[in-house]
Amino acid sequence: MDIEAATREFLASPESRNHIIDTRQFKERRPLEEVFRLADKIAGEIKAGKTGYARVLDGKSMISLFYEPSTRTRLSFEMAMTKLGGSVISTENAAEFSSAVKGESLEDTIRVICGYEPDVIVMRHRENGAPLRAATVSTVPVINAGDGSNQHPTQALLDIYTVQKEIGRMDSLRVGFVGDLKKGRTVRSLAYLLSHLEGNRLFFVAPESMRLEDDIRSYMKERRVEFEESEDLGEVLPEVDVLYVTRLQKERGSTAQDGSYYVLDRKGIARMRPGSIIMHPLPRNEEIHPEVDSDPKAAYFRQSANGLYVRMALLHDMARG
Amino acid sequence: MDIEAATREFLASPESRNHIIDTRQFKERRPLEEVFRLADKIAGEIKAGKTGYARVLDGKSMISLFYEPSTRTRLSFEMAMTKLGGSVISTENAAEFSSAVKGESLEDTIRVICGYEPDVIVMRHRENGAPLRAATVSTVPVINAGDGSNQHPTQALLDIYTVQKEIGRMDSLRVGFVGDLKKGRTVRSLAYLLSHLEGNRLFFVAPESMRLEDDIRSYMKERRVEFEESEDLGEVLPEVDVLYVTRLQKERGSTAQDGSYYVLDRKGIARMRPGSIIMHPLPRNEEIHPEVDSDPKAAYFRQSANGLYVRMALLHDMARG
Amino acid sequence: MDIEAATREFLASPESRNHIIDTRQFKERRPLEEVFRLADKIAGEIKAGKTGYARVLDGKSMISLFYEPSTRTRLSFEMAMTKLGGSVISTENAAEFSSAVKGESLEDTIRVICGYEPDVIVMRHRENGAPLRAATVSTVPVINAGDGSNQHPTQALLDIYTVQKEIGRMDSLRVGFVGDLKKGRTVRSLAYLLSHLEGNRLFFVAPESMRLEDDIRSYMKERRVEFEESEDLGEVLPEVDVLYVTRLQKERGSTAQDGSYYVLDRKGIARMRPGSIIMHPLPRNEEIHPEVDSDPKAAYFRQSANGLYVRMALLHDMARG
Repeated sequence: MDIEAATREFLASPESRNHIIDTRQFKERRPLEEVFRLADKIAGEIKAGKTGYARVLDGKSMISLFYEPSTRTRLSFEMAMTKLGGSVISTENAAEFSSAVKGESLEDTIRVICGYEPDVIVMRHRENGAPLRAATVSTVPVINAGDGSNQHPTQALLDIYTVQKEIGRMDSLRVGFVGDLKKGRTVRSLAYLLSHLEGNRLFFVAPESMRLEDDIRSYMKERRVEFEESEDLGEVLPEVDVLYVTRLQKERGSTAQDGSYYVLDRKGIARMRPGSIIMHPLPRNEEIHPEVDSDPKAAYFRQSANGLYVRMALLHDMARG
Repeated sequence: MDIEAATREFLASPESRNHIIDTRQFKERRPLEEVFRLADKIAGEIKAGKTGYARVLDGKSMISLFYEPSTRTRLSFEMAMTKLGGSVISTENAAEFSSAVKGESLEDTIRVICGYEPDVIVMRHRENGAPLRAATVSTVPVINAGDGSNQHPTQALLDIYTVQKEIGRMDSLRVGFVGDLKKGRTVRSLAYLLSHLEGNRLFFVAPESMRLEDDIRSYMKERRVEFEESEDLGEVLPEVDVLYVTRLQKERGSTAQDGSYYVLDRKGIARMRPGSIIMHPLPRNEEIHPEVDSDPKAAYFRQSANGLYVRMALLHDMARG
Repeated sequence: MDIEAATREFLASPESRNHIIDTRQFKERRPLEEVFRLADKIAGEIKAGKTGYARVLDGKSMISLFYEPSTRTRLSFEMAMTKLGGSVISTENAAEFSSAVKGESLEDTIRVICGYEPDVIVMRHRENGAPLRAATVSTVPVINAGDGSNQHPTQALLDIYTVQKEIGRMDSLRVGFVGDLKKGRTVRSLAYLLSHLEGNRLFFVAPESMRLEDDIRSYMKERRVEFEESEDLGEVLPEVDVLYVTRLQKERGSTAQDGSYYVLDRKGIARMRPGSIIMHPLPRNEEIHPEVDSDPKAAYFRQSANGLYVRMALLHDMARG
């Protein structure tokens, strides 16, 4: 399958609006703002101990179909559904424990699962493009919870929501990305999304072996996004409003002797601008020293918590039918 | 354990009515019709977006105890329970992750689990006869969700429900079975069930190595069911109202060079009678070509969806206590 | 980490009251009595088919975080939460399927999970002290569902609840422990708890290789608890009100040729006092012969069932917020 071509075709179809597959679906500012407004309202209610949204998906159900294990993302989606009053039917390791082993095609699996009448399917898969294939045959909304090295759109949405909440805007920003930019789907998804908003300038910091893939580079050029590539984190630190740190994707084959070069510590953050923030899709390994955690710039745990509200907002809209 | 003898003894006991272990429990037409009538009502409500059954198992809980993974069957049961308002406590791979590893007997496990006061236990096991052993010590209803190569009674119930719905009757039918008839528990379960209804004539098509086991053959003879065995699918295609296709049970050790002989494609279905249908317990591998899917004869995805309604009807009756 | 020192520090802190980590938290009789009174009330309601507690945790949610699989304990906690009307988000095998594999620290995992706003976290871990570390960073109550060979406090609570229910008191008892006393965390947890109550006399029966660890011995000495160690079960049988049998912890490396020495059978229990009981944390292997099960002294399945009520009582108090 030519995923790129299939994605373009999918994005051009009206059905794409029923699913969340790729951040390129979010070309307009308005739908983002609507999701974030709802996320804000939900977060406010939860913080205030109110239960206004606690029954909104009563009687609705979500199937978590995780072909690649991900405790974090799965728990976040499942908690989001649960907090809206919906039910969750879950599979923690579909690849190992399922009809996939018995040689069934993904399309057949989705057709069968749609017959069980869920209101939404949340799917993670090792293979790039798998959620797109699922969406093509599904009769219910499909949310891509990460496919291979391709996309992780709800991560990008919670990322940009975090930027908006922490910095107060989502445009005219200087955003630095550091780490494994080659294999990380979160960088790809977020870079696409930032490219749709005005005046953002992106900095990509990685050693040669982990540089950005060509497709993001061409996407940004096409959309006339200003960006720079560099191998020197020190140079970029004082420049950015947001520093987006990622870990080495060891499980996707990345290795780097020089990975240790990019360890952010107290000394490093001292060079960052006042009011700037550090983000990380988590889990982290050594790339951010724990001594950074207590600094107000360290936004990564707030960012992760924002995932709950953004996913509640998305499920709220998609699973009500 | 002599499973055959134990099953006969169990079927003769009044306790057997509390459990679903073997299709030989359904010797009468009436209970089948009652289940199917309820399944029809539930399906109608769901299709109409009504919520008449959405709270009927409120406060009731089901434990899914899957010693052999089966995403499909587990999700179907769990969704059925959820759609009736019940709760689900689930174990995706009890064999690997459980007290079984610590050397506990199945009987002890069931005694302990009954102490947690579930309203129903749904159990899949690699071993023939395991659900029967469970039912013997259980204080709550046990549903067999497939045991080894032995039985899969709820599959057979949804199969016959599908036949009734698609063809309009469940007797005086000509039903062909094709594929791996030796290892498949669905064929065994359904053949038993069809033997209890009047005037059905069965055709079994398989290569020598995958022929029917003797016990089904004797059961049919005992009940004077007309049946034929053949190796030629082409010969049987124009004869049947229902063609029940099954896949090679590779995970149970089946192999066949000539497996590819039985691939049903557009040419094949052109030879089938008007109004006849193709069923398959799914997952399918290559035995039905995807080009068949769009033909109205292709009933297998409707069949799978019917599983939800039949399981809702069964749980409705069994878990209310 | 020096677990012993960290535990002492934790137990001295007021935050410890929000969590259940170690039976040494229960030094007073009063809190135990309160939990047991609530467990009694809940058990009574369930037995009477009443639903007084069925909605008390409506809208609350529990995350089961099992780094070491345990069908039994997980199902018991999940059913307890469900029967109080709460929701469960579950991970059956966090060690294999999670961010742990991606190199995340336990502390980070807990911080992230707290961001999903559960009302309680139930955690099992292979590593001694892991739940303590979790509690230290958690913003919600953490319940230790077993950590390595260290502690299993809710098991000890249900054990002592069972003693109280079966014998009518939890002090002035003669309690024998037999089996693998070295590796079993249930023995450790329960011995601590019995040491806090007055007049209990403990007997420990094990072969040389599976004798009690020094820390329990010093704890009992410190608290002036009378205890005896022996290798002869026959000698101890007529002495005790409660015989607490445990299995060989094979998965923690225990082996014993003489393990078979301690098989309790009908002959053995004939030597026990009238009104005495046999307990076992289960699963059992060969250390109690099935012929004992039907004897009224055999309290182990009642004990296991009591776990549901005790865990409901604990969750009732901890997850209401």
